[in-house]
This record gives sequence, structure tokens and C-alpha cells, in this order.
Amino acid sequence: MNAHQPNASPDERRTVHVREVGPRDGFQNEPETIATADKIRLINALGRAGFKRIEVASFVRPDVIPQLSDGVEVLTGIDLPDDVARMVLIPNSRGLDNALHHRELYEAATLFVSASQTHNMRNINRSVEETMADVAVMGKRILAEDLTYCAVIATSFGCPFEGEVPMDRVLELAEQFAASGATEIGFGDTTGMCNPAYASRFFAAAIERLPGVEVTAHFHNTRGQGLANAYAALEAGCSSFESSFGELGGCPVPKGSTGNIATEDLVSMFHEMGVETGIDLDAVISAAREAQDVLGRKLTSHSIVAGPVIWHPAI
Amino acid sequence: MNAHQPNASPDERRTVHVREVGPRDGFQNEPETIATADKIRLINALGRAGFKRIEVASFVRPDVIPQLSDGVEVLTGIDLPDDVARMVLIPNSRGLDNALHHRELYEAATLFVSASQTHNMRNINRSVEETMADVAVMGKRILAEDLTYCAVIATSFGCPFEGEVPMDRVLELAEQFAASGATEIGFGDTTGMCNPAYASRFFAAAIERLPGVEVTAHFHNTRGQGLANAYAALEAGCSSFESSFGELGGCPVPKGSTGNIATEDLVSMFHEMGVETGIDLDAVISAAREAQDVLGRKLTSHSIVAGPVIWHPAI
Repeated sequence: MNAHQPNASPDERRTVHVREVGPRDGFQNEPETIATADKIRLINALGRAGFKRIEVASFVRPDVIPQLSDGVEVLTGIDLPDDVARMVLIPNSRGLDNALHHRELYEAATLFVSASQTHNMRNINRSVEETMADVAVMGKRILAEDLTYCAVIATSFGCPFEGEVPMDRVLELAEQFAASGATEIGFGDTTGMCNPAYASRFFAAAIERLPGVEVTAHFHNTRGQGLANAYAALEAGCSSFESSFGELGGCPVPKGSTGNIATEDLVSMFHEMGVETGIDLDAVISAAREAQDVLGRKLTSHSIVAGPVIWHPAI
Repeated sequence: MNAHQPNASPDERRTVHVREVGPRDGFQNEPETIATADKIRLINALGRAGFKRIEVASFVRPDVIPQLSDGVEVLTGIDLPDDVARMVLIPNSRGLDNALHHRELYEAATLFVSASQTHNMRNINRSVEETMADVAVMGKRILAEDLTYCAVIATSFGCPFEGEVPMDRVLELAEQFAASGATEIGFGDTTGMCNPAYASRFFAAAIERLPGVEVTAHFHNTRGQGLANAYAALEAGCSSFESSFGELGGCPVPKGSTGNIATEDLVSMFHEMGVETGIDLDAVISAAREAQDVLGRKLTSHSIVAGPVIWHPAI
């Protein structure tokens, strides 16, 4: 049967936006640097799978993250359909300077901060306040270039160092991003501390407090709850999600943990529920298997082993 | 902070029943037979973790499932707190004859059928109708012995051979079990074909159609949706769940797939949500790590690697 739930009436169908972050968030966390040609081949395969947004590179210092030092070569080498927006991550003003030298190679730029002071200091060696002051300036420059301006708030659901991260604190940072012109804001569960009851409350509140913003859920599967959180966020009205093919990447804290939720598992769940994504599940599974070959190790997504269901109950 | 969500008001707290099935459903699926002494040690550890129900043995023919041929020795050897009910699985009348010779060794007996004709034939070589005719007789014998009479319906959410398994068909079988005196009825997602939207609808309907019955969800994590399904069932009113420590066991279909949801991941999610289980999460993780040592391979639960969260957002 059709993966897009033939039994659901048109009224019951719902469409969500799934953004692929594996080529940046995933490749960055590999112990061995992946060859540029392999990256290009995998990103092109993802482009054919129907994603409308792929995070393909980061303008970080090559000595800090050597795995992504070929960002410009990757951006130059890939060949994506016209309706796929290429997204790049910008860590700071210097990164933005560099990124704007290559303005023609992408359509969306993402700024980020951690909601937790300690995590932000350890991650980018600046306080949250310093980062947000920079954001105001960088946001203007991004908008002036007619790029889509996106933001991500890490440790939105708890910090491995500080523990508590209050919802109000996170939503205030999101409002600051929105005030500086960001039109898409993602909330990252950096070390998998969210649970579905909280995801439900959080996304209902975020959607209410951020009118006109595409509110995006970025969950990790650290404690196996990634898809449960995605389902809870969906039920609370969230319709934009980030995930990584093959379950690549994310923050391996505690040591040895898995990070990002797997795109193929997320898309599989949505399709079985009758929620449309516009994504070809078989093509994502195939790209994840290809990544497995490139990396020479078994990846941890479930669908990579189990494949799509042959039939699923009508919702 | 306390794992049992100190920030939830007493009104917001909710209690669920988590039954451990690893010693039967898990050990049965191991390629190597586990030594009886190891089984006894692991079951005793689970008994100290606070479960009120543990499935410890199956009265199947030893030539069919040699991994469980030491069932009577295990039942005789274990030493569980008085408030822990020992549950055994009964495949047929001959198994029941055998089980009733050892009536004093357990408190609950489970009968089962597959909702799908093909799966039932392949599993126990009888039609669904033949099985249900036997059930009526076996149920009476179980009740006559003053045992708790439980039932499980496999392939409740789809069949790997037939595909579709209509909800009505499953609930009619459940009503037949209830009519024969079963007071607890579990619904098994044998090959992980359920999705959260369907779980929500299914458990709302099952609870309505089975008054006075403890309706139990038994999900598999084949496509990574196990906890999402558990959350959806919980939200639909289900308050009884089966799971397996270490993510042991379940039905490895398609080949290589994972089966049961991990008890420690399920309990971790519930506690973080403020849902009480009465179970000591650290003790379950510790038992799962001990199973890992006994089996000499890495198990696939998430909490076994990541451990409990140090803090979780208040629900």
C-alpha cells in the first residue's frame, strides 16, 4: 500500500516540514573526516529524496572543526534541485564575514546560542548576553543579503552542566531572535533531556509566543524518547522538524550516547500516521545505507534495518 | 533531583503498571541458552527493582524452545518479594497440564493467540478459531485454580504476512477472552507495525469495549516508534505496559530488527513525565548491564548507555 496513508481522508491529512541536518550536524561529529566527494554524493542523494531544506555546511574555523573545513568545496560541488534551500551554520561575526564571501552558494543562514550559560561558554566561549548582542548585528547583515534568517537555541530542554533551563528563559531568547528578524527558530534538545509531556507544553507555548515564526523541533534520541517527543510536539501544533539521516551526529553526551533522531525513522512514523512530508522514504533509507558504506560501520537508525512497513493501520 | 518529578502536584501525578517480560520473552530469543543460575540471579535482581509482575517462564515443549526448558528449575530457584506475581506463558492444553503440576510456583497464567490467521498457523500450527475454542476450556481450568488469568493477542496492529489486521477483529478476540474470564488482556505489536495515531485510537476503543479488564500495551521498537506508541496509549487512558529489560527479545522480523521496548527507557520516560511506576530505574539499568555481561554483547537500550537524566523539565 501507499506509504502516504491512502485510507486517511484529505481532511485528516496534514503536512509537515522535515529538514535534513545530517551533512552538517552529522558529518561534523564523525571521528574520521569524510572525503569531499563522498559528502557531495550523499547530499545529492538527499536532494533527490524530496527535502526542501538541507543543512550542508558550517562556516566555523577549520582548526576547530576540521571535519567541515571543506564547506565551500561541498557547497560548490553539490547539485540540488532548484526548490531545495541550502542552509549553512554561522558561529560568529568572523564566520559570517567568510560566509558572505560565498553568498551565492546558499539560501538560508542559521545563528545559534545555548539557553544555558555554561553550555554556551563551553561551546563558543562567550556569555549568552554577548552572543545575543552579536546576533542583533549579524541578523541585520543576513537580512540585508536577502537570505532566510534562521536561529537555533541549544539546550532548550535542559543542560548537562546546569540541569534546569526554564521555559521562559528559552522563549525570551526566541523572542529576541524574532525581534532581530529571524523567521525560523529551532529548539534543540542537545543532550536528550526532553520528555513528551514537556514537549507538548513547550511547543504549544512557543507557537503562541512566536507568531509568524516557523517553530522547529530538533530532538535527540539520547534516552530513546526522540520520536515520542516529536509526536507530542506534532500534537501540540508543531509542523517543522529537524533530523539526521542514518541517525548521524548530535551531541554524544553522556559519552557513547546516540544524538539526533533518524530522518528515516521520523518520516516513517509521520507517513504511517497519515502525515505528509513530501519525502521519499525509500530514498532516505537508501542514502542512509550509502552513508553506512562510506563510514564503514553500522548506523543506529531502526528503519535502516527494518525498512518501511508493508502495511499500516488506517488512522 | 528526585526521579519521581517533585514539581508535579499530587493531582498531576499518575501511576501506571509496568510488567517485566524479559526473562521469558527476552531469554527465549537468545541464540545461546542462558545458564539457569544466571537467569535466577537476573530475575531476583528484577524482583528487587519494584516490579509487581514478572513473566518468568513458559510451559512450551523443550524441543520447540530449548532456551526455556529449565522453566521449573527457574521458578523453583527464584526468590522474589511476596508482592511480586510470577507469570507463566501457556501455549496449549498440554502446556497447561504440565503447568498445573507446578501450580504453587506462580500466580498468573497467560494464554495467547495471534489476531492474524497466518501468523497463528505459523506460530502454533492451529487456526485462530481452534485456538479460541481451546481458550474457553483452558480459561476455566486457570480460574478454577484461583490463578490470575491473562491473555495476549499477538499481531494486534498488523501482520508481517497478511498486512492488515482490522481493529474490530482484534477487539472481538479480546471480548472472547474477557467472556472466558480473562481479567488482563495485552495487545502485542509483534513486528512493530503500530504508529502513535493508531495507538491512540486503538487503546481508547479497547478500554471502552473491555470494562473491568486491565488493558495492556505491548509495543515493539522495530521502527523506533515504541515509546511514541506508549506515550500515545498512555494519553488515550492506558495504564498497563509490558517491556523487556535491556531491550531483550521480541520478534526479530524483519531479520536483524530489534523487538521489545526497553523497560529502562519506558520507565525513564514515565518518570520524567511525572508518571509513577513504583520501579527503581537505577536498579533496572543495573540489571540490564548485568544481562549484558552474562550475554557477552552490547544490548540496545538507550538508558543502558546514557543513564537517567540528571534533571528533567517540570511537566
